[in-house]
Amino acid sequence: MVPVYAYFGPAGTFTEMALDAVLRRRGEASTATKIAVSNPPAVIDLIRSGGADFGCVPIESSLEGAVPATMDALSPSAGLPRVQAYAEAALDISFTVAAATPMDPADVRTVAAYPVAAGQVRRSIEELFPRAEVVVATSNSGAARDVAEGRADAAVTTAAAARMHELATLADGVADSDDAVTRFLLLGPAGPPPEPTGADRTSVILDLPNTPGSLVAAMNEFAMRGIDLTRIESRPVGPGQYRFYLDARGHVRDAAVGEALRALHRSAERVVFLGSWPVDPQLAVTTAATPPDHTESREWFHRLLSGEL
Amino acid sequence: MVPVYAYFGPAGTFTEMALDAVLRRRGEASTATKIAVSNPPAVIDLIRSGGADFGCVPIESSLEGAVPATMDALSPSAGLPRVQAYAEAALDISFTVAAATPMDPADVRTVAAYPVAAGQVRRSIEELFPRAEVVVATSNSGAARDVAEGRADAAVTTAAAARMHELATLADGVADSDDAVTRFLLLGPAGPPPEPTGADRTSVILDLPNTPGSLVAAMNEFAMRGIDLTRIESRPVGPGQYRFYLDARGHVRDAAVGEALRALHRSAERVVFLGSWPVDPQLAVTTAATPPDHTESREWFHRLLSGEL
Amino acid sequence: MVPVYAYFGPAGTFTEMALDAVLRRRGEASTATKIAVSNPPAVIDLIRSGGADFGCVPIESSLEGAVPATMDALSPSAGLPRVQAYAEAALDISFTVAAATPMDPADVRTVAAYPVAAGQVRRSIEELFPRAEVVVATSNSGAARDVAEGRADAAVTTAAAARMHELATLADGVADSDDAVTRFLLLGPAGPPPEPTGADRTSVILDLPNTPGSLVAAMNEFAMRGIDLTRIESRPVGPGQYRFYLDARGHVRDAAVGEALRALHRSAERVVFLGSWPVDPQLAVTTAATPPDHTESREWFHRLLSGEL
Amino acid sequence: MVPVYAYFGPAGTFTEMALDAVLRRRGEASTATKIAVSNPPAVIDLIRSGGADFGCVPIESSLEGAVPATMDALSPSAGLPRVQAYAEAALDISFTVAAATPMDPADVRTVAAYPVAAGQVRRSIEELFPRAEVVVATSNSGAARDVAEGRADAAVTTAAAARMHELATLADGVADSDDAVTRFLLLGPAGPPPEPTGADRTSVILDLPNTPGSLVAAMNEFAMRGIDLTRIESRPVGPGQYRFYLDARGHVRDAAVGEALRALHRSAERVVFLGSWPVDPQLAVTTAATPPDHTESREWFHRLLSGEL
Repeated sequence: MVPVYAYFGPAGTFTEMALDAVLRRRGEASTATKIAVSNPPAVIDLIRSGGADFGCVPIESSLEGAVPATMDALSPSAGLPRVQAYAEAALDISFTVAAATPMDPADVRTVAAYPVAAGQVRRSIEELFPRAEVVVATSNSGAARDVAEGRADAAVTTAAAARMHELATLADGVADSDDAVTRFLLLGPAGPPPEPTGADRTSVILDLPNTPGSLVAAMNEFAMRGIDLTRIESRPVGPGQYRFYLDARGHVRDAAVGEALRALHRSAERVVFLGSWPVDPQLAVTTAATPPDHTESREWFHRLLSGEL
Repeated sequence: MVPVYAYFGPAGTFTEMALDAVLRRRGEASTATKIAVSNPPAVIDLIRSGGADFGCVPIESSLEGAVPATMDALSPSAGLPRVQAYAEAALDISFTVAAATPMDPADVRTVAAYPVAAGQVRRSIEELFPRAEVVVATSNSGAARDVAEGRADAAVTTAAAARMHELATLADGVADSDDAVTRFLLLGPAGPPPEPTGADRTSVILDLPNTPGSLVAAMNEFAMRGIDLTRIESRPVGPGQYRFYLDARGHVRDAAVGEALRALHRSAERVVFLGSWPVDPQLAVTTAATPPDHTESREWFHRLLSGEL
Repeated sequence: MVPVYAYFGPAGTFTEMALDAVLRRRGEASTATKIAVSNPPAVIDLIRSGGADFGCVPIESSLEGAVPATMDALSPSAGLPRVQAYAEAALDISFTVAAATPMDPADVRTVAAYPVAAGQVRRSIEELFPRAEVVVATSNSGAARDVAEGRADAAVTTAAAARMHELATLADGVADSDDAVTRFLLLGPAGPPPEPTGADRTSVILDLPNTPGSLVAAMNEFAMRGIDLTRIESRPVGPGQYRFYLDARGHVRDAAVGEALRALHRSAERVVFLGSWPVDPQLAVTTAATPPDHTESREWFHRLLSGEL
Repeated sequence: MVPVYAYFGPAGTFTEMALDAVLRRRGEASTATKIAVSNPPAVIDLIRSGGADFGCVPIESSLEGAVPATMDALSPSAGLPRVQAYAEAALDISFTVAAATPMDPADVRTVAAYPVAAGQVRRSIEELFPRAEVVVATSNSGAARDVAEGRADAAVTTAAAARMHELATLADGVADSDDAVTRFLLLGPAGPPPEPTGADRTSVILDLPNTPGSLVAAMNEFAMRGIDLTRIESRPVGPGQYRFYLDARGHVRDAAVGEALRALHRSAERVVFLGSWPVDPQLAVTTAATPPDHTESREWFHRLLSGEL
């Protein structure tokens, strides 16, 4: 059976490009069935219901849709099954500005853009198209369709969507800042994580007791064991109540990470395991500390217990 | 001179409602000059350039526009002046669905909604208007205008915008989840913070060395001094590099908070002080720990130094 | 084969009384072979060389001999085998003052006392025997012998030694302070520790890197895992170099204690395991925290790894 | 008025040598009045009562008398005034073995030794004087007197005491281990500490709440502020209750040390300040971290509060 991959669509979005990157790595680029879904929570619902085997959603950057909504959807309500990440893809986000036919930038009067994308290219568009007004599109891909269908002169869109709608590129690599990092996750139902590679990421969602210091104590469970935290987000879940999303370097099968997770399970109100998976090579940094190796200390300890040491 | 308050508009958005709440508390509701601005970074730019005295932007929730973009704008590039928060307002976010005239929900075929709002009311809209399709609007307020101008049957909008456009309310208090907390900040140029009230919030942006444990160490500067952290966000600023946004209970004039900030200044690559201001009464929780009082220990210490103890 | 128990003698010292208490608990009071040894390091040497199966030495209080020397001897030089504690006994230390025959306190002119004991009863002796001068004895038991052999009028000694030398008790329960706690350890060669009882003590000797914070980091390995430290001593081992002796609540077979020891093995220059053994019932306090139970979190974790959760 | 210096005597002990070293540094070697006192707690009592201006006692090593008793005496009972340290001296401890006249080591049958010293030279004496028996002396100096008065063939004593009693040196630099570090403190009544020198030591006694983690939390007050702890001792003060003695690098006038002490004052049941004084040059190590400088962060903070930054 060919697996079904849902993604936050429509076709031609950055999310589809990220999914393609993952599929290429998995050697499934030509065979996989892809279905576009209208928003990230719906992708997650489809995995939970069995309607898709896997799903691709943006997780770090609001360039495409509501990442906070994605985060909320990842944290299952009581009774719902857990979803889990198995891979990630990092895209170097920049936009293509395209028109129906090649045209003088000074003649561009309307630029279709998804509102969040518009926020990322505001200054660039003002410079490139000084006489243009931004009109709202339903997605980065939808902006291209708006141009193809005559509702705007130009579109802030992706290279893939411009190609799909046979548009002419006016500008490429458009972005107000050049340090945007956008990560996408390949999600699936809960299951055994992929094998450790030595450069992995582990992600958890924590509901913590509403007491001073509970977050620092939770983070210390990682720090004390030599595990580097690479990302932390808090989401309000009620007055004075927060939910925390933590990414750590290392794999759940690394002894240090396992210890940390078990410790969190004892102290947190809830720990949702979001998976362990290989870091996208583009994000691997040379300073990255991998969790310390416990092999030697375990041997020492077992000899100690037996009294032979 | 009447102060000028910019806000993330257009008129009728939640942000304007939040600004009004702040102005009422300051006794300036009837006198202040308000100007609507197209996006939160532009509000911040206007304060920096002196075009507005104050500005109101959403900071915690993506219900209106790009909160990440707001956060990025709060962190000044080299040479730009610092902006600072002086007040906050929390709104209990739910939407009004309104039409040009009272109508049967079953007859609603198109619902105009700002994309992010659409994500928050998706399930509710499906239940209330089973035959409706969502069409994109440029803002929550713009959705109401779309209805007033005949581009949609109904709008997911705010009560204020519905009134402004003289629409008929079809449903009130619409929200898929009822625990949404949205905070808005009143920003201004750097200056002395308002007096401590005993229930204050202090916010900082930290650029930390890219070494394992640096974030936990920074948070420990608060935890060790009995200061409760209420919010933490990380934003990628480059490959493997993060910027952290921390909210703490307490006022910069509380001795414990002052100690923590000075300690961070010594260890962090950069500390941007975003201000100390009173917590919105709606968010004040009874379990809130205020930072410990240092008065007695200071007296003890001074007598110790003098040798009289 | 009847085991041989060495102890810091001579007969009649507090250490012999502590050994007797341990032997009664082990049901060996009437059968064990006891040999008195002249100093605690010699007791430890005898165990190392196989000349004794077990040995009893004071560990916490300098009432009898050089506890620091004992501590140094517990830390094996390169190539020497490790010794390990299997039991402890706490004695409520107070002294008996005894004379050859009953006599008027005012007539006592010389009081024999082991120097360290003399330091503990100085004020009491001044009050009880205002005209007496203290003369040095070789041990608490030796003080009784000095009286028996006519070298002093009275002896600061133990009840056991007074009986042994058939002396008349002039005063009982003599101690300047009534909160002295003296612990004695039953040592033996390295071997499997006794079974956990739920109220155990674990002791280690740490050689730490000479870097700021290394001691606090080591102690945090216990604290972070909910393990209470009950004692800590530092001994200089060179200029600016220290060796640390830590006692913790819990048993090496408690998962939390095992984790802490393995972590120390990874970070310390050397970890010497001194054993896990039951706390003397007299020292068990109701507030004592036992290390947290890891059973449930381990089950959770194994189900997580298998993907069934 | 010439100040009176008490010391743990008698004349010729290591403590007198340490006092002389301190007096030389203070330029008072030839003028000070010295009085020998029979034990360290009595030295401290004499300072408290005003009978001496200063006093010298051993603090780290049990080579001379009961250091634990000294530590107990430093911690004032309710109502008693605090004593404070103003200087320290480190002695490289080794012993002189001396006889009335030069003699063949093989002929030495009795060696007088203070019991604690005997513990430090046991192996050396066995090698040097294989036929000798150790007899107890009242102090290191008293051992020399015992030889001078014919009660023993040889004495384990100090160079000073051997000279004083005009004995012949049989062996010099006698010590079983060559890494003994012995520190002595110059104590006086509470008063302003000496000026910071950049290489100072600060010492405190802490009574902590009997709760798990309270000791680590207390030590973290130093570690978090970049202050190196050089020594820590615990003394039992009741069942399950401990008192802690901490030495830290730095001066009470260093901002970091001041912060730490004020923090301890807020959390501990009692903080007794034992003083800040220059480290003995012999103990100054190149790796020694001085507490971080707070000057720049204070300036930053004051400009922040004023809004000018």
